[in-house]
Amino acid sequence: MREVFHQSLEDVQGRLVEIAELVTVAIDKATRSFSTSDVALAEEVIENDQIIDDKAIELDELAIQILARQQPVARDLRIVVAALRVSASLERMGDIAEHIAQLTRMRFPERAIPRGLKNTFIKMGELDVEVARTLAELLRTEDVSLVERIRTAEDKLDDLHISVFEKVLSENWQGEAAATVDATLASRYHERFADHAESVAKKVLYLATGDWTADTETLETLRLQ
Amino acid sequence: MREVFHQSLEDVQGRLVEIAELVTVAIDKATRSFSTSDVALAEEVIENDQIIDDKAIELDELAIQILARQQPVARDLRIVVAALRVSASLERMGDIAEHIAQLTRMRFPERAIPRGLKNTFIKMGELDVEVARTLAELLRTEDVSLVERIRTAEDKLDDLHISVFEKVLSENWQGEAAATVDATLASRYHERFADHAESVAKKVLYLATGDWTADTETLETLRLQ
Repeated sequence: MREVFHQSLEDVQGRLVEIAELVTVAIDKATRSFSTSDVALAEEVIENDQIIDDKAIELDELAIQILARQQPVARDLRIVVAALRVSASLERMGDIAEHIAQLTRMRFPERAIPRGLKNTFIKMGELDVEVARTLAELLRTEDVSLVERIRTAEDKLDDLHISVFEKVLSENWQGEAAATVDATLASRYHERFADHAESVAKKVLYLATGDWTADTETLETLRLQ
Repeated sequence: MREVFHQSLEDVQGRLVEIAELVTVAIDKATRSFSTSDVALAEEVIENDQIIDDKAIELDELAIQILARQQPVARDLRIVVAALRVSASLERMGDIAEHIAQLTRMRFPERAIPRGLKNTFIKMGELDVEVARTLAELLRTEDVSLVERIRTAEDKLDDLHISVFEKVLSENWQGEAAATVDATLASRYHERFADHAESVAKKVLYLATGDWTADTETLETLRLQ
């Protein structure tokens, strides 16, 4: 029974990694479509989001079957519950990649990326891709040192998010209302994307340390290193 | 054992209703603080969000204990898993109320509500309060006819969300960049709030109908009535 359980868990883990990799591809394409106004690339992201959603639903079904058939307790139970939560976060990250692609499509043939913020958004896109890629690696390897890398990227994204608002609200901002709307939404999407990744990273850290309620403090400790 | 399980479920349900009621209070105060620039009310929402977060964590712990001790299967198992998801959505709705209160605080002593959009945001606020209140009632009574009421309010919120962008992007929009940012963020928060409520409503509907995968279609059917 224990053997079967561990095979099931490996299956769950493999699927989480697969979804995280699909999310990495999605955010990479979405942010490139946003900075290059590549509407074909944007369409691809929008179309493929259904695959991520379907895979998340399949994974949830598998997790529920494991709960029903193998009735795990203690740490094993928490792993399965955590998988359900991770799947929800990954699915939401896929949605956010889709939203960024939708901004590209909405403004096409105009550029979605607001003038004067091109470098900022290219940097935010690169950081989100790094976050997603690191998250997939964390889920695959369970190497908790990667949590800190995600946290660092998330901090940088927070700073860039604030800098977007500073720019938009400064006196020399010359963007039209459309550019202000795009900058506000896109920046928010980037920040939320990394937020979800951090929340997943916390769960992996919890599973590694076994300490559910103290995950925030554990992360704080890691940050201080 | 069955008796114990049902008592546990009633406890879970009672706690979900309690959290939904706290979220209703939060969104009511947040939207009123936003339209009246009442910073004290906004502070109250920001401070009390921790209570919602704590209650969601306690509920999750209870649900995990039920899974471990009573090892439910079939529909019972799905009820507990659904409770975990509903708790995550309610917690997120509380966060969104907090974000709206933060907008109020950030602009104070200026008005956060953008000129020319006052009536729209008052209406959005009222709809979100209605959505939250109906959701608490749905969780308490399991009366699935309430799902349709939430869906209708969510549709109206979607229309208002689109109308905010139409206004902001129209030629006679005279708002500064700050007003454009506030309108964009606040409108997005209102729309997301109702989105989460709808996602909870779908889960309750699923529990009532027992059909997990077809919940979207079932909702579509309800909409056509």
